[in-house]
Amino acid sequence: MGSLQAWQDRLGRPIVFEMVFRVIGQADPKGSLIHAVRETGARVTDVGVDEIDEDTDDLICRMTLFTTGDDQMAAARKAAEGIEGIEILEVIDVAMEAHRGGACEMVAPPIESNTDLRIVYTPGVARVCKAIQADPELAYEFTNIHNTVAIVTNGTAILGLGDIGNVAGMPVMEGKSAIFYNFAQISAVPILVDTHDPDEFIETVAKIAPTFGAIQVEDVKAPECFKITRELDAKLPIPVMHDDQHGTGTIVLAGLYSALKKVGKKMENIRCAISGAGASGTGITDLLQEAGIGDVILCDSKGIVSRGRDGLNEEKIALAERTNKENLTGTLADAMKGADLFIGCSQPNIVSRDMVRSMGKKPILFPLANPVSEISKPDALEAGAAIYADGRAMNNAIAYPGIFRGAMNVRAEKITFAMMMAASHALANLVTGKDLLPEMMDPATHAVVARAVAEAAV
Amino acid sequence: MGSLQAWQDRLGRPIVFEMVFRVIGQADPKGSLIHAVRETGARVTDVGVDEIDEDTDDLICRMTLFTTGDDQMAAARKAAEGIEGIEILEVIDVAMEAHRGGACEMVAPPIESNTDLRIVYTPGVARVCKAIQADPELAYEFTNIHNTVAIVTNGTAILGLGDIGNVAGMPVMEGKSAIFYNFAQISAVPILVDTHDPDEFIETVAKIAPTFGAIQVEDVKAPECFKITRELDAKLPIPVMHDDQHGTGTIVLAGLYSALKKVGKKMENIRCAISGAGASGTGITDLLQEAGIGDVILCDSKGIVSRGRDGLNEEKIALAERTNKENLTGTLADAMKGADLFIGCSQPNIVSRDMVRSMGKKPILFPLANPVSEISKPDALEAGAAIYADGRAMNNAIAYPGIFRGAMNVRAEKITFAMMMAASHALANLVTGKDLLPEMMDPATHAVVARAVAEAAV
Repeated sequence: MGSLQAWQDRLGRPIVFEMVFRVIGQADPKGSLIHAVRETGARVTDVGVDEIDEDTDDLICRMTLFTTGDDQMAAARKAAEGIEGIEILEVIDVAMEAHRGGACEMVAPPIESNTDLRIVYTPGVARVCKAIQADPELAYEFTNIHNTVAIVTNGTAILGLGDIGNVAGMPVMEGKSAIFYNFAQISAVPILVDTHDPDEFIETVAKIAPTFGAIQVEDVKAPECFKITRELDAKLPIPVMHDDQHGTGTIVLAGLYSALKKVGKKMENIRCAISGAGASGTGITDLLQEAGIGDVILCDSKGIVSRGRDGLNEEKIALAERTNKENLTGTLADAMKGADLFIGCSQPNIVSRDMVRSMGKKPILFPLANPVSEISKPDALEAGAAIYADGRAMNNAIAYPGIFRGAMNVRAEKITFAMMMAASHALANLVTGKDLLPEMMDPATHAVVARAVAEAAV
Repeated sequence: MGSLQAWQDRLGRPIVFEMVFRVIGQADPKGSLIHAVRETGARVTDVGVDEIDEDTDDLICRMTLFTTGDDQMAAARKAAEGIEGIEILEVIDVAMEAHRGGACEMVAPPIESNTDLRIVYTPGVARVCKAIQADPELAYEFTNIHNTVAIVTNGTAILGLGDIGNVAGMPVMEGKSAIFYNFAQISAVPILVDTHDPDEFIETVAKIAPTFGAIQVEDVKAPECFKITRELDAKLPIPVMHDDQHGTGTIVLAGLYSALKKVGKKMENIRCAISGAGASGTGITDLLQEAGIGDVILCDSKGIVSRGRDGLNEEKIALAERTNKENLTGTLADAMKGADLFIGCSQPNIVSRDMVRSMGKKPILFPLANPVSEISKPDALEAGAAIYADGRAMNNAIAYPGIFRGAMNVRAEKITFAMMMAASHALANLVTGKDLLPEMMDPATHAVVARAVAEAAV
């Protein structure tokens, strides 16, 4: 299972199934079975024996398959059913099963006696309440508020799926909670806010904010997300961060620090073309400018965002003011001509090989659209890309757990650009070899980010 | 530690400390130490050796003390310091320590590989989101919403402490969360709502309600709690229950079912005097009337709540309409004359022995004021009380975990009086011997309540 090729192979087959099957009698057709399943394009990563049927001595086996989706799995199942001596018992959708019953829950230490109860609840708890009433600072010590993040969404921009509603977005919020807990030991509570109105959203979150040590705004669509994040941040005495803006910005900047070293260019000399002027495009722009990038040219579906263009909303008018020094107009293709860096936060397959060829020397490409990026890796490399990293490589989960951990460790009231930049630098400094970003599964990655952010906060 | 006497002794000494001390040299003055500490009135429940100091061979020991509070602990410490060969190293406030860092947290299963991450988060999670978008019913299966209760408060009536603010109330909410998890395996999320205005409270909770499978309103003062509970219940498609009203009502009714069997009286023939017309008094009245009690006479600080009395608020005018059949006026003493049952939800020591003597035959007394009740047990028994149970015995935590568990198991949209009455009956039916209520620490208690509530809901 370990080779890079196998891993990349699986990346292209993101839907994981387990197939449980019976091997009838003494024959062992597992070799033929694996061959037949592979012929459908599915990747088999594991085959094992679950148990032996006591009555028949048949083996009950389980195969793990990475597939492109339901159709490929159906084909794989059909192929398996064609093998003599194999009976398919069950096909399990692993992601669905992992989310059955939810991906996070509120727990507590055991209450095993009346004495335990009288300590965790009345009368003992009254003592804790009175202590906090007398000195509100003690809430940081004797409640979990300081270690709790609210993950707030209204469900209007869930992953690349759009406005699917807050309840359908819950599995993403629970997944984020699982990441917070695993990577940064933070108690993260999903909160679904049932409104499309930004003022109502702000008002609701502000009213429940005393419950939390920080707020992560999540998967709220642009342009509402800008007002929501800005006003909550101004209003509340705790950190507020919109992951789609600034988590993405932090990761992109970290990747860019690594990439610039490899291509031998300097931040202040490069020009960047960004496709997509929503939450991510704007957040990335903000952070790249803080880091001193030469210039950024943003494009939306109508082309380059420029001063004087018709039909720009308030946020884009402000973007036009602070980007695009020469006030270029035109299409994404125009924006990419001569650019050193392309960042995609938009649509699949909108960048051609010719557009890459029109870029400056040793171009860096971060096409981040999910699940299919703006240009495939083979096409980009063929057209001369020096560095290529898509949304799978540039995962926000490398950044935000450590950012919140660091901010909360020092009780920062804001997550500033300086703190995000410190996180980007720390991530880039951890990188070895050909990678752009350090290993997400390594606890040291998150610890280093937390330390850098805490230092930048103080 | 096991005798009933020892337990009652500890009930009167609710503040638990641990004292860590060094026994210097070979002498063992622990007997003298225990004697000296007991002389101060503190109860010693446990003495053990933590470790042996490797350098000196001194024993490092730990003593558990149940005390009336800081003053008694200070006296016990001073007495201990007077014993030769004993050096006090540390005195630990057990309740404070139990709440250090908070009493509940959001956790998730381990993420140990990139594959785990791709299942719990993108791209696997998109599959779960899309499934729920296509069929919103699946949210009950593939998120934790169905098993999550919000514990919502604005901190205006925390325990008997009053309006101490929402943050100072957090240890109580965390304690409730710990009870929900331990007794009913429910994920319970404290939510502090930063407003004193009932309409804002309702609006805020309604906006975040899609996150939860049920709402527990907690420690919100009267009369605002009535409007809040009523309107949220009407507005939301999930159960809403105010524990102080209806959790207390359920427990009192359960205790009353047990008590009536013991004194040989019938519900429809008894008259009840209640001291306190706030959340608990009102909730208890509601449920006793549903159960068919003969009559209830409520008293507030100004005396009997009667039709035509001056200065009644809206809630009390409604109470006067539906209680007090003969429209008695006067004081609590007048209300108690000839009554079969007294329930206290008010102030310490306001019931005299003469008032108990004025009640009907075999009077039942539930003086629930915390931490000191309306009349002490010795006084009540001396004055002829047939049954006595105070707030320590009548603990809501026997009722509400199972009520929510049962309601959520069958996806009830309301917690009705019929469901609460079913819980009361189930609790009373579990009782054996002299008790009024079953053992809270027994998981069967909560399972039986859950089953009864689920059956009543269907």
